[in-house]
Amino acid sequence: MDLGMIGLGRMGGNMARRISRAGHRVVGWARHPEVVRAVAAEGVIAAESIEDLVARLKPPRAVWVMVPAGAPTEEVVASLAERLAPGDVVIDGGNSYFKDDVRRARLLAARGVLHLDAGTSGGVWGLERGYCLMVGGDRSAFDLLEPIFRALAPGRGAAPPTPGRTRAGGAEDGYLYCGPHGAGHFVKMIHNGIEYGLMQAYAEGFDVLRGAAGPGVPDELRYELDLAEIAELWRRGSVVASWLLDLSAAALAGDPRLEGFTGAVDDSGEGRWTVQAAVEEGVTANVLAAALFTRFRSRQASTFGEKLLSAMRRQFGGHREAARSGGGDR
Amino acid sequence: MDLGMIGLGRMGGNMARRISRAGHRVVGWARHPEVVRAVAAEGVIAAESIEDLVARLKPPRAVWVMVPAGAPTEEVVASLAERLAPGDVVIDGGNSYFKDDVRRARLLAARGVLHLDAGTSGGVWGLERGYCLMVGGDRSAFDLLEPIFRALAPGRGAAPPTPGRTRAGGAEDGYLYCGPHGAGHFVKMIHNGIEYGLMQAYAEGFDVLRGAAGPGVPDELRYELDLAEIAELWRRGSVVASWLLDLSAAALAGDPRLEGFTGAVDDSGEGRWTVQAAVEEGVTANVLAAALFTRFRSRQASTFGEKLLSAMRRQFGGHREAARSGGGDR
Amino acid sequence: MDLGMIGLGRMGGNMARRISRAGHRVVGWARHPEVVRAVAAEGVIAAESIEDLVARLKPPRAVWVMVPAGAPTEEVVASLAERLAPGDVVIDGGNSYFKDDVRRARLLAARGVLHLDAGTSGGVWGLERGYCLMVGGDRSAFDLLEPIFRALAPGRGAAPPTPGRTRAGGAEDGYLYCGPHGAGHFVKMIHNGIEYGLMQAYAEGFDVLRGAAGPGVPDELRYELDLAEIAELWRRGSVVASWLLDLSAAALAGDPRLEGFTGAVDDSGEGRWTVQAAVEEGVTANVLAAALFTRFRSRQASTFGEKLLSAMRRQFGGHREAARSGGGDR
Amino acid sequence: MDLGMIGLGRMGGNMARRISRAGHRVVGWARHPEVVRAVAAEGVIAAESIEDLVARLKPPRAVWVMVPAGAPTEEVVASLAERLAPGDVVIDGGNSYFKDDVRRARLLAARGVLHLDAGTSGGVWGLERGYCLMVGGDRSAFDLLEPIFRALAPGRGAAPPTPGRTRAGGAEDGYLYCGPHGAGHFVKMIHNGIEYGLMQAYAEGFDVLRGAAGPGVPDELRYELDLAEIAELWRRGSVVASWLLDLSAAALAGDPRLEGFTGAVDDSGEGRWTVQAAVEEGVTANVLAAALFTRFRSRQASTFGEKLLSAMRRQFGGHREAARSGGGDR
Repeated sequence: MDLGMIGLGRMGGNMARRISRAGHRVVGWARHPEVVRAVAAEGVIAAESIEDLVARLKPPRAVWVMVPAGAPTEEVVASLAERLAPGDVVIDGGNSYFKDDVRRARLLAARGVLHLDAGTSGGVWGLERGYCLMVGGDRSAFDLLEPIFRALAPGRGAAPPTPGRTRAGGAEDGYLYCGPHGAGHFVKMIHNGIEYGLMQAYAEGFDVLRGAAGPGVPDELRYELDLAEIAELWRRGSVVASWLLDLSAAALAGDPRLEGFTGAVDDSGEGRWTVQAAVEEGVTANVLAAALFTRFRSRQASTFGEKLLSAMRRQFGGHREAARSGGGDR
Repeated sequence: MDLGMIGLGRMGGNMARRISRAGHRVVGWARHPEVVRAVAAEGVIAAESIEDLVARLKPPRAVWVMVPAGAPTEEVVASLAERLAPGDVVIDGGNSYFKDDVRRARLLAARGVLHLDAGTSGGVWGLERGYCLMVGGDRSAFDLLEPIFRALAPGRGAAPPTPGRTRAGGAEDGYLYCGPHGAGHFVKMIHNGIEYGLMQAYAEGFDVLRGAAGPGVPDELRYELDLAEIAELWRRGSVVASWLLDLSAAALAGDPRLEGFTGAVDDSGEGRWTVQAAVEEGVTANVLAAALFTRFRSRQASTFGEKLLSAMRRQFGGHREAARSGGGDR
Repeated sequence: MDLGMIGLGRMGGNMARRISRAGHRVVGWARHPEVVRAVAAEGVIAAESIEDLVARLKPPRAVWVMVPAGAPTEEVVASLAERLAPGDVVIDGGNSYFKDDVRRARLLAARGVLHLDAGTSGGVWGLERGYCLMVGGDRSAFDLLEPIFRALAPGRGAAPPTPGRTRAGGAEDGYLYCGPHGAGHFVKMIHNGIEYGLMQAYAEGFDVLRGAAGPGVPDELRYELDLAEIAELWRRGSVVASWLLDLSAAALAGDPRLEGFTGAVDDSGEGRWTVQAAVEEGVTANVLAAALFTRFRSRQASTFGEKLLSAMRRQFGGHREAARSGGGDR
Repeated sequence: MDLGMIGLGRMGGNMARRISRAGHRVVGWARHPEVVRAVAAEGVIAAESIEDLVARLKPPRAVWVMVPAGAPTEEVVASLAERLAPGDVVIDGGNSYFKDDVRRARLLAARGVLHLDAGTSGGVWGLERGYCLMVGGDRSAFDLLEPIFRALAPGRGAAPPTPGRTRAGGAEDGYLYCGPHGAGHFVKMIHNGIEYGLMQAYAEGFDVLRGAAGPGVPDELRYELDLAEIAELWRRGSVVASWLLDLSAAALAGDPRLEGFTGAVDDSGEGRWTVQAAVEEGVTANVLAAALFTRFRSRQASTFGEKLLSAMRRQFGGHREAARSGGGDR
């Protein structure tokens, strides 16, 4: 089938390639012409503008938007709202906030245009491994787009069958209709929240492993552990085996002390929204919140709060401040 | 080679079977005779006592202790210390505290007996998948025991090669010499600490997913999500894919609302020791601590601390206490 | 001066009394006539409706709204917007969300009515001790209302002077102009967020004190501590002395085991908004978040997340669930 | 009565002064002669050695040890054990670990010497305000020392009576017999654990206040708050009033942006031991643990765990690291 793809960056470009390789006709457009040329060389049809992209698609048109969440997505969706016709479909594959989906779907519905929110996981490996797709929105649009989802998703064979599972198909194919508008991005949001938590669990664990050779540890209990080997070991037969561990092992294999990193860690909106959703729902989420806060802290040399701790200590005990150790050391 | 196995429960029994199937001569003993008979039917030689087990092994003898940490392990190791000869080896495969290893190794060394601490992961799946082995202690004993470790471990093929890894062998085989006495159990301890953190990240995430249909959520943002399908979906191509997710998917496939559980979650010593090691080392571990504290809290109907919060609120604001909802509901 | 007071509950009623005792003319109205009668007996002029209340005030009129945040406040402010004249002032003394202040102030400004948001702390003790007032909004309205703030606030003598403080007056009087619309409620919101954190610190500490006599503690380290005496002790000369500790001591003096409480602890919006503000700002707030989550957890018999932990443990290790202890016990 | 005081630093020196002013005969010794001379000028009798100090006291002798916990205390107690006679008393007023008290008391008991562990709070303000004393150990020794405790403690008038309290005396005097050996230091340990939690609650709250003017906050919700004034305000009539808030107000009055601090915050043993006690008892302590971990983190430029987060993000998403902001900024 036909698909328009707006945004051809690390994610969108590879997705266009994967859909195209599966035999579909993909028309692509992006803000930077060189990016469009790169995918055009691999079978994607290059459009010159959003208008041109819309014109090159057969109705009912389906346009996948794969640009950053927030203003860029807002702008592209608004532009499509003006150019698409009743029965056409906009798929937002970015990391939009689920409440924005509800609002935008209403905007599009006023013109008869359908909306899908398609949370997409897979990163730079998706071209090869396939993309995991969490979809919300108009059910009829989901049905229409299934060939595209099938092309993008990893497929049933990507994991062994789950013992005890009786349902056939569905999520096993690597894509899922999750519910009404926003449901796909809601599920993707929690997915990323969990991802933060998992990453932080490994981070703390490896930090304690490394600390076994740190200052203050008595000689008898001092271990100089080979973190890269331990990561490699746990990939086989242990309870903590995971894809994130595979990636950790790869990172540690190449740079065992991670000297190529400063440790200032960004966060996308989804970790924040997950904590806010937990707070709104009244659900306990200490681990997800701590994982998020670690990232906030990692980007600051110090906090005002820590200075206040020092100030109080000086007030009541006359205490001097501690020395600070260098990066990654204790 | 010959191996004695003391303790033939869920872990020890299957390990004896796996070693025996690999062609080694295993002599087994356990406190309960029916447990011994069960493995004897599958090729393991039944001993009638620890003394008998020691007598049936060719020197240098190697005896694997697979009994609960604490008093039971203490007792068996003391008993072996009296019966083994210089050059023999005791392998503690249980979940012992690494500081106990250091102490016990010194005790055995006084009699010329070698000691290995072999942290063992794999659970009830190990018989089939193999066991991940984290080994510390006397290096010469490790070398002697390698055929046994090789028989137990999952082996190189259990996971795809790590990109960028240049070292051959080692951890890829599924077992690793981690360092001096206690190092194996130290690494296993952190492994379990990470396990707690990973489990808690999934637990919180699924709780927020479920909360999307909870009371107080506005209709427009209300999602009745199919948690079993979402777990199944994430197994393919997503960043949060892991063995623990595979198990979650299996659990949810059979009991989508987890009605067979009360939610009172035990903790073994290792989660506690991990937090204590972090505190001793001066390493930040909010996620690992929160995961542990969740388990503490899960086993209580309420805490004294929560009552004190209510008492303060009544004092300053005349506030009444809230109502409590039923299990798993909000 | 004249003041209208809408809402005469635990907070509003006592505030009307305190203002009236200071010699101002207070006209009060509340939904429940018996509440109006109660304050009328103590010098507050009873109004029969909002309309009547407005009619009985001399312009420029000032009306203090002391009703629950959310819908009730929304409704009263809307009603006042229709009845007040340019130059009049609405003071929202409840626990409104600061973003709502900004919106409502704009609504009132369209009619020339001024708005103040006055975060008010003091609880049931305010009548006697005075109320701490955090005020945001139109500066001219603040200046107009200063006699009222002065009547409500505890006054300079309520605390010894701060060493090193050079500024005269200002916050020392117990009320403060914090900034533009919403600033007062923003500061009150953080005040409550801190309150949650302080309360939780005491709660955990007393829980550990009590745990010193809990099961599993070795005899030699077992202490049966008198928590009421310890709270009393810390009130004198210790670093943890505070008003919340005074209240804890009072609660424990009357009910040393807090048997009159279930431990299900409510949360008002402000603890939630504080965590959300921290997340929006990118500020680390593990303690404030943990304090909030403790309250969520306290109101549930168990969580779905805890059931998922149990389910995973059964899957990988065949583990049975733990038993649950009774309220406040371990 | 007579009292020996070993250690005359910030704490011990002022305590010797306060006891001496109350009319007792204090014999002091410290490692540094100039420190001894300083207190000798104020009525404390200078000893030339521990031996000399013991010789100058009338039996039954009571010697208060006020030196750093760990090796220094160990050494002084051992030295006293050799020099004191049956019926004499050693009081450990430092921040010793409660398990060490149990061990040392046994050592002293073998020679008939009694032991008290006296947790002491009050900091540099104690000379004037009095010291809060949490005492464990031999009851008969406590009775003997009561005149000294009374001299050190703030006394009944230091706080208004607790409503509902029926017991006379006891903790109201500012000192308390808490229980057998170690009980005093156990209570002091928890006191400090709570102190960490309280401090962190204020630190996070002020950080969120400050963040209201941080980057990324929309103009309409941007507040430039005067933190010093807010701290001053909350001292009067608010729920968060406390001595730590008084100290915060003093610190902010002198240095509103806390520019004199780097924010690297030390921790004494007691915060660590509190978390370890919670873990040993199975008590939930997210706030106390988070407060401790914040201090660990504050002393590092970055952590290995944070580098691992960055490394994973590069592996799965090709993400670059974030920039790091300067001290106290965001």
